[in-house]
Amino acid sequence: MSTDPHGKTKLDPFGTTFIADYEKLYEEFGIQPFKPLLPQMPEPSAAMRRGVIFGHRDFERILQAVKNHEEYAVMSGIKPTGEFHLGTLQTAREVIYFQQHGAKAFYCIADVEAYEDNRIPFERSQKYAVGNVADLLALGFDPKKGFIYQQSKETRVKDLAILFGRGVTLATMKAIYGEHHMGLYLSALIQAGDILLPQTKEFGGPKPTVVPVGIDQDPHLRLTRDLAFKFRRKYKFISPSSTYHKLIKSLDGSPKMSKRDPMSYFTLEESPEVIAKKISNSFTGGRPTAEEQRRLGANPDVCPIYDLYLFHFFERDQDVAKLYNEECKGGKILCGENKQRLTKIVTDFVKEHQRKRRQNIDKAREILQID
Amino acid sequence: MSTDPHGKTKLDPFGTTFIADYEKLYEEFGIQPFKPLLPQMPEPSAAMRRGVIFGHRDFERILQAVKNHEEYAVMSGIKPTGEFHLGTLQTAREVIYFQQHGAKAFYCIADVEAYEDNRIPFERSQKYAVGNVADLLALGFDPKKGFIYQQSKETRVKDLAILFGRGVTLATMKAIYGEHHMGLYLSALIQAGDILLPQTKEFGGPKPTVVPVGIDQDPHLRLTRDLAFKFRRKYKFISPSSTYHKLIKSLDGSPKMSKRDPMSYFTLEESPEVIAKKISNSFTGGRPTAEEQRRLGANPDVCPIYDLYLFHFFERDQDVAKLYNEECKGGKILCGENKQRLTKIVTDFVKEHQRKRRQNIDKAREILQID
Repeated sequence: MSTDPHGKTKLDPFGTTFIADYEKLYEEFGIQPFKPLLPQMPEPSAAMRRGVIFGHRDFERILQAVKNHEEYAVMSGIKPTGEFHLGTLQTAREVIYFQQHGAKAFYCIADVEAYEDNRIPFERSQKYAVGNVADLLALGFDPKKGFIYQQSKETRVKDLAILFGRGVTLATMKAIYGEHHMGLYLSALIQAGDILLPQTKEFGGPKPTVVPVGIDQDPHLRLTRDLAFKFRRKYKFISPSSTYHKLIKSLDGSPKMSKRDPMSYFTLEESPEVIAKKISNSFTGGRPTAEEQRRLGANPDVCPIYDLYLFHFFERDQDVAKLYNEECKGGKILCGENKQRLTKIVTDFVKEHQRKRRQNIDKAREILQID
Repeated sequence: MSTDPHGKTKLDPFGTTFIADYEKLYEEFGIQPFKPLLPQMPEPSAAMRRGVIFGHRDFERILQAVKNHEEYAVMSGIKPTGEFHLGTLQTAREVIYFQQHGAKAFYCIADVEAYEDNRIPFERSQKYAVGNVADLLALGFDPKKGFIYQQSKETRVKDLAILFGRGVTLATMKAIYGEHHMGLYLSALIQAGDILLPQTKEFGGPKPTVVPVGIDQDPHLRLTRDLAFKFRRKYKFISPSSTYHKLIKSLDGSPKMSKRDPMSYFTLEESPEVIAKKISNSFTGGRPTAEEQRRLGANPDVCPIYDLYLFHFFERDQDVAKLYNEECKGGKILCGENKQRLTKIVTDFVKEHQRKRRQNIDKAREILQID
């Protein structure tokens, strides 16, 4: 975790997010800790149990819907600027988790944001979109119980953005997002449309909606919750709930993976050999010598390899606990050995995933109506 | 004509426009005088001949298209916040004039602007839209050679707005429009989409386009011309041309009619009796007594009654000249008499117009696809 030059926590979906201390988010931004709700959640996900999902807004509303078998929705998405990586994998798994626990699932291909924020022309993002949707399907998303769409083609979302325009002053936009060009503000309004789409008449009207996202996306939630309140009279919107996951560390040990540095992350489309190489080159929390590591133990809290096990690649919680305490802190395993074990798990997963993904490409094209 | 408290000319499509001196617009805003082009225009309209259209941007491009019988477009529209009045009548006549002189005509029902700027819900503006389109048809617009649409339903215009978002900084928006809520900026981007719609592939690609508007709309033109330049590589946009008409004076003598004061203007839907009453109560440039008026003459330059003849209700230029010089300045006519003559012309026109309008209501519904 890191701080900006002034040591202040900064959440910016369009830029770099600095998180000095996740605990501080509770006070500074009014995000609630997730842990106290854990006992009330039937069948919590691995990310919930392990504290990867650490915060929420109004998640009690979702708990209630789950318990009472009431209608609710899950909504999240991906910015189609490249292949699935470990961050988008996290969000996709969360959406699928809620879908499997009774939610109507909405998955948005945020191609307007890809254009406004990253200058990716729609023709190009469309290609990524097909792959991204195939990934989502390969991971278990059920399109029959869900709605997958591209922002650029979804008139209802654009129309909500137009509606919401009246509800946001320039000052609010600048306070939430900083000084940007108009396109970014417009894409923020469209995101608000995405988040409230599940509550429109066409989708059955107002309902609790959970938006599982990385903590850097919270500004969109704050904006949308404000808009849901402002337009409550006409649309009866229920303020959307959210869960926040931590951001998985970059393979170079810095707080967030970056597209600019391909060695800082891997995608699910890379070859097992390239992934093995990246894992092998990764930063760790290890000691300078094997002797020291066996004697003093290593530091999992700064280690991207530990994060990979924690976020994605150990199925059983007890294996994570054992790695953290005995193997890593207890000096029972050396980093090279640990990387080799991880490489085996990751490449097995990736090979199988790539096979399933190929099987889903045609289905993805069909869903997105792309030839 | 009037100035703001600081004596500065201010053009604001979303607020009050103060025009200290039309001449100043040439220097301050880079608007060109129309008069020097008049001899080159075959069959100039009354508004052109009489200086009601006083300025332009790049109108030479349109002159050339007209002369060479090349494809060009005319684009303008109405904010559906009420019935046709003397300002929207002026714009409609200009659009029809260019249509009759070879232009592909585009007429936009700016319902997004009506919502963002005037809080008019779409359900309500739709009702006005039907009437407005019936007015346009009654005035002679040929729907077979034109395209009439509502912003809120025209995806291509919204998509252009999304595209243009990237091309406008917040600073530019504030410099052009001042500090507003997001919706107004969004509606400005949509207006840019309206103005460039005639040049999209679906409508035959790049072509000279003239936008005849009241001078208060110039900010939209400046924004759009800037965007046409920024996105020229991909879309080959030709910078849109414009003509500017003066704003007809309010019946109370102030520089602009205002919806807030129903006695300051009349609509084409009011009864002839109400219109007669409003004309009879109008401010004039007359003298306190008949004797003084006959001796010293009156002042047509400040007179809304003179404006009505000039803009709309004298067909022949020589009648306008005679009114201005001999009758008014020369003291040959008293204001009461002049008002009675005008009332006769206006009520004859309005009765006939209302009859034609009724005949076009069904056609208007069909064009707008409103039941």
